[in-house]
Amino acid sequence: MAETNRQIVLDQIPQGKLGPEHFKLVEAAVPHPGDGEVLVRTRYISLDAANRAWMQGATYRSALTSGQVMAGGSLSEVVESRDPSLKPGDLVWGDVGWQEYAVAPAKRLAKLPALEPVTHLLSVYGVAGLTAYFGLLECGRPNAGETVVVSAAAGSVGSLVGQIAKIKECRVVGVAGGEAKGRWLVDELGFDAAIDYKAGNLRGQLKAACPDGVDVYFDNTGGDILEACLFAMNLHGRIACCGAVSQYDGAAPAHGPRGVPGLIVTKRLTLKGFVVMDFDDKREQALKDLQTWVAEGKLKVQEDILEGLENTPAALIGLLNGENRGKRMVKV
Amino acid sequence: MAETNRQIVLDQIPQGKLGPEHFKLVEAAVPHPGDGEVLVRTRYISLDAANRAWMQGATYRSALTSGQVMAGGSLSEVVESRDPSLKPGDLVWGDVGWQEYAVAPAKRLAKLPALEPVTHLLSVYGVAGLTAYFGLLECGRPNAGETVVVSAAAGSVGSLVGQIAKIKECRVVGVAGGEAKGRWLVDELGFDAAIDYKAGNLRGQLKAACPDGVDVYFDNTGGDILEACLFAMNLHGRIACCGAVSQYDGAAPAHGPRGVPGLIVTKRLTLKGFVVMDFDDKREQALKDLQTWVAEGKLKVQEDILEGLENTPAALIGLLNGENRGKRMVKV
Repeated sequence: MAETNRQIVLDQIPQGKLGPEHFKLVEAAVPHPGDGEVLVRTRYISLDAANRAWMQGATYRSALTSGQVMAGGSLSEVVESRDPSLKPGDLVWGDVGWQEYAVAPAKRLAKLPALEPVTHLLSVYGVAGLTAYFGLLECGRPNAGETVVVSAAAGSVGSLVGQIAKIKECRVVGVAGGEAKGRWLVDELGFDAAIDYKAGNLRGQLKAACPDGVDVYFDNTGGDILEACLFAMNLHGRIACCGAVSQYDGAAPAHGPRGVPGLIVTKRLTLKGFVVMDFDDKREQALKDLQTWVAEGKLKVQEDILEGLENTPAALIGLLNGENRGKRMVKV
Repeated sequence: MAETNRQIVLDQIPQGKLGPEHFKLVEAAVPHPGDGEVLVRTRYISLDAANRAWMQGATYRSALTSGQVMAGGSLSEVVESRDPSLKPGDLVWGDVGWQEYAVAPAKRLAKLPALEPVTHLLSVYGVAGLTAYFGLLECGRPNAGETVVVSAAAGSVGSLVGQIAKIKECRVVGVAGGEAKGRWLVDELGFDAAIDYKAGNLRGQLKAACPDGVDVYFDNTGGDILEACLFAMNLHGRIACCGAVSQYDGAAPAHGPRGVPGLIVTKRLTLKGFVVMDFDDKREQALKDLQTWVAEGKLKVQEDILEGLENTPAALIGLLNGENRGKRMVKV
């Protein structure tokens, strides 16, 4: 085992766009676990837009502070355990930060099943897959034949949302940046249509792609795309509020979308915010469904795996700029 | 029976604030009903913020156009009937417009029970009472001990929402304009606290009045009050989106409230728009509950009755300026 532990520290809280200058690579000693704790070695770090949101203030977790090891979930392997619930070699999920080694209380780590490829534990069987599943099915509640729109559609969550909506026999339209991503959504993942938000005229594009209006909108972005969808929603439409990636990388927005609350009232819309852990009690069924769909070839899992702890800041910055397709992670 | 029918015509669609110059009093002949139609005489015209919203564009009904008799619901009495379902003397509710007499298809009129005072058919047993009942109980779903905030709290709907929330054993805070209205809410209607939105520092006032945060917000106003409530909501809070009176009397607002969708996600809020007719199937139980509460003295019904068809425009303009307490109507 190495003696030193490389860590990425959040050196400064960004005020505007996130850049490499906000991070610092440092070395520390590998820590030792106390009673009830385990030492883990990081194998894959999950990159998520939420990493950036945590820098803006308290969310469903407390705000990050400068000088701390950058927070983030990862797939890790237990190296040394001082708790009976875990043993060396076990794979665990937990927010242990961007570092090679970490000590954490065993009760804050979730033991993962042995499964190949292990990276699926971070994508389709991890937070991304469960977020797509619960957000769409529990908050969006699509019926066969309805039109479902999803933003950040080429991302880890969005690419699964659209495919699950197809399994549920909906018309599926993905909003993504650039024509190439749109082609990929339609040709490879089976979406019915794609909208390039960088091409402008969102409301016109939505109208063309959704001739019967929008029944369910799975919102990963907030901002202009949410606004355009509010105008395109049908009576009694449902909006699953999953995230607001358009608003994380910069100052907090001065305003929300037009149509709130006017269109919510007149169209009798339901907007529902959620976080994946709200549905922990239904996790088992969700994983079973996801595994079945993957095995049947109905759910294609796209992963975007970079290498090297030192590249984690760039991986996040790139994700916020829309570089990735599918689930981005860094192999450490 | 009179030969002439006085009517208030919407002469111009207002671009900014609504004024008397947008209306015109005209006289026409009293019309004759055809087969399946009835002639009604208007007794009380209901004044509602929605009257103004209809001038902005299509809502849950088509937009108003200049030159038409101003639309509005009223309590009317059947004078002549050419439909077997109604007979002279019957009281009916329907959108027959601001005029002394009207002809309408019988099937577009709802027969009302004989009941004293008849004005209660427009207030607590009318759209206002049912809107308060369904919006709070079906969309807000308050539990005993929770904190409920309602805006336009001294209005027809808000004053009932707060009292129903008290019946459901909640802490109730009303947002209204001016100290006098606030005192009335607390001293006469039993609200726990009131907030004067004209005094500024809404977020500070909300914090002080809701030390345990807000679980249910019944939104009649939209705009700044909705924004302040979004920041005050507790995890898993519910917002019943009933109307947006702050945004009806002028140009459509350029932006929505801050915190959408960010706070919806992190706090896992549910925003639900509704219109009273969505709950027609539960109407009977609602009326039974409302009647019981009124009989028991738990629900005080405040009515604000003006006189004379010619004063209807001023009655609406005043309502939009927050003049009224409780249900405003015009006796014709």
